[in-house]
Amino acid sequence: MDYDALFQKALDGLHADGSYRYFAELERKAGQFPRAFHHGIGREVTIWCSNDYLAMGQQPDVLAAMHKALDETGAGAGGTRNISGTNHYHVALETELASLHGKESALLFNSGYLSNWVTLGTIAARIKDCVVLSDALNHASMIEGIRHSRAEKRIFRHNDLEDLERHLKEIPLDVPKIIAFESVYSMDGDVAPIEAICDLADQYGAMTYLDEVHAVGMYGSQGGGMAQELGLEHRLTVIEGTLGKAFGVVGGYIAASAPLCDFVRSFGSGFIFSTSLPPMIAAGVLASVKHLKKSSTERDGQKKAVALLRQKLGQARIPYIMNPSHIVPVMVGDAKLCRALSDDLLKRFGHYIQPINYPTVPRGTERLRLTPGPLHSEADIEAVVQALSTLWKDYKLEYAA
Amino acid sequence: MDYDALFQKALDGLHADGSYRYFAELERKAGQFPRAFHHGIGREVTIWCSNDYLAMGQQPDVLAAMHKALDETGAGAGGTRNISGTNHYHVALETELASLHGKESALLFNSGYLSNWVTLGTIAARIKDCVVLSDALNHASMIEGIRHSRAEKRIFRHNDLEDLERHLKEIPLDVPKIIAFESVYSMDGDVAPIEAICDLADQYGAMTYLDEVHAVGMYGSQGGGMAQELGLEHRLTVIEGTLGKAFGVVGGYIAASAPLCDFVRSFGSGFIFSTSLPPMIAAGVLASVKHLKKSSTERDGQKKAVALLRQKLGQARIPYIMNPSHIVPVMVGDAKLCRALSDDLLKRFGHYIQPINYPTVPRGTERLRLTPGPLHSEADIEAVVQALSTLWKDYKLEYAA
Repeated sequence: MDYDALFQKALDGLHADGSYRYFAELERKAGQFPRAFHHGIGREVTIWCSNDYLAMGQQPDVLAAMHKALDETGAGAGGTRNISGTNHYHVALETELASLHGKESALLFNSGYLSNWVTLGTIAARIKDCVVLSDALNHASMIEGIRHSRAEKRIFRHNDLEDLERHLKEIPLDVPKIIAFESVYSMDGDVAPIEAICDLADQYGAMTYLDEVHAVGMYGSQGGGMAQELGLEHRLTVIEGTLGKAFGVVGGYIAASAPLCDFVRSFGSGFIFSTSLPPMIAAGVLASVKHLKKSSTERDGQKKAVALLRQKLGQARIPYIMNPSHIVPVMVGDAKLCRALSDDLLKRFGHYIQPINYPTVPRGTERLRLTPGPLHSEADIEAVVQALSTLWKDYKLEYAA
Repeated sequence: MDYDALFQKALDGLHADGSYRYFAELERKAGQFPRAFHHGIGREVTIWCSNDYLAMGQQPDVLAAMHKALDETGAGAGGTRNISGTNHYHVALETELASLHGKESALLFNSGYLSNWVTLGTIAARIKDCVVLSDALNHASMIEGIRHSRAEKRIFRHNDLEDLERHLKEIPLDVPKIIAFESVYSMDGDVAPIEAICDLADQYGAMTYLDEVHAVGMYGSQGGGMAQELGLEHRLTVIEGTLGKAFGVVGGYIAASAPLCDFVRSFGSGFIFSTSLPPMIAAGVLASVKHLKKSSTERDGQKKAVALLRQKLGQARIPYIMNPSHIVPVMVGDAKLCRALSDDLLKRFGHYIQPINYPTVPRGTERLRLTPGPLHSEADIEAVVQALSTLWKDYKLEYAA
């Protein structure tokens, strides 16, 4: 049995259709974001596709908190949360995150992926006869969590209230149900009708599970996400967030009622059996969350950069998807072309924008996804639009109407 | 629908049978391991249940590397590995880990749990008709990965070659198969017959998947694990390890052939869609792996402490499971008693040993699991055995024969 040949054959398929992924080996430079050194091409580049949306990964308070905790507590946690791995920084961060979302409790995970997978996987599996109603564009981590639970799953059309209600009507009122959805969808940047979904949830007796990973830190007066921005936090059963995007470090969490968090804490295998995050990671995130609770400078800077990029793309007639968020998807629609544009942007112009292809987006919707932040200057934005314009001409691509 | 009542009812069940988990809120003190401040009781304690087996979490080279990388690269990675989240430290660490295990390639994950879950879940799901042969005492992360794959699973009796061969014989030779097992089993500390399992794998055309999380750093001349100690690395298809135990930080990995790692890299959802570990985490681990490659001081110190603890437990006739590893399980056999002993050890004597209960071990085998390391002094060991002796008398527990 030649197993390597089996693996290689599958990989050959990716090469053939252009969706094989090459990782860019970068060296981020604290103090110089969005600049980084790109080892593949041996030069400095400007990063346009980071999820460190607000550049909190180089914020001085965050770095100082991490240095301090590293000196105080050492490198790692030393165990799972239950077996010697709970540090006072974990506890303090969970308290802070619960407060950020106006919830009783919060629970940390090693990644946002794990928080979705474990929480949905545990709740849907252990509540008898639970049905999960899942938005068609939910993130892979939610899909895998639901799949893992083996609960009945019903997929409703993306952001489609009528279709969601049609499903809800078909499920008896006394059957437990969860509506799982996101606030900001990462690849198109569109936003869910959160309030109307909560209304349906109330009407049909469903829990609501809201993934806010592309919103926490960035929306709401304190960075509590879209639910905070809309004053809806109290209507959501679970708010899930990440510590690795706008908060700039790594990790994931849920905020919810005390019994729900305790339930996931007590029964979620992926939580119970994971070595916990290093205390200094929790310390850094704590500083980041606290900073973004009181400072709007980063959020304002991001909004300005996003508006300017859109304006200049519009002037250059480069096609992008308009949406109410900070995400600017420049549509390409072909994996190989997307890769070629990305390579040219990098090698000719020093702009790093990873091509986004299957399975992150459906085939045929390949794109360059730009996430300008508060530290992209007007000159940076001018330069990247100029580069895109040149490529649009060179490749004879279609312009926006 | 009162969902919180459903969650609370399940939690009440844990309270009733004594298996509800209370987390100890600790403050590890770098430079003073195994000492930590226990917030629950407001005093300094000695930790006996850490998986930072060699105290690398306070090793100066490790901390220096993390401080340096934090200053250079900032707090987080800024994205998934594919989308701006690959740093040169990730690449350097993967190269180092591949070399440590004599493999072509390695792949990092955010936790050991994820490395097992993603790798087994991806391979077993995507190789057509794959059958997984799984040791009965495999870790939850392997079990969940296999479950997630929906491949056919056959559980063989723990470390039982005859039973494994019986299963292998029943599967046609041309059906792909994986034998998944651990080297050191974490709760009993016993060791698998690795060579004989590799022999069977060769004979029946199976891949071998070896979880070395309780062995890497501690066994083998360079800390390459039990497979290295026994000179068997080349016979294993996949070696999986953790960066959160003996290496002292956080994270997980696999080391294997280049096509296998590339396959998991390209198709493993939990890998693709996770924000990568902060570069400074990778930098710290890199320093830790390099240190333990050349230094045996920590391993020798651990062996000495383990031998001394066993000797003194023997003299005091406290019952423990003998095994060829560094794990010293003192058997109690009842969840509530185990909790009471742990509470008394903590409050009366300042020794922190978390009670190990279901689902980490089967009910009826509850235990105090001690993992002495190179920094537990002779006086520490004397003190903990003295405390156990006092409790054994107070509680009128059975002595070893």
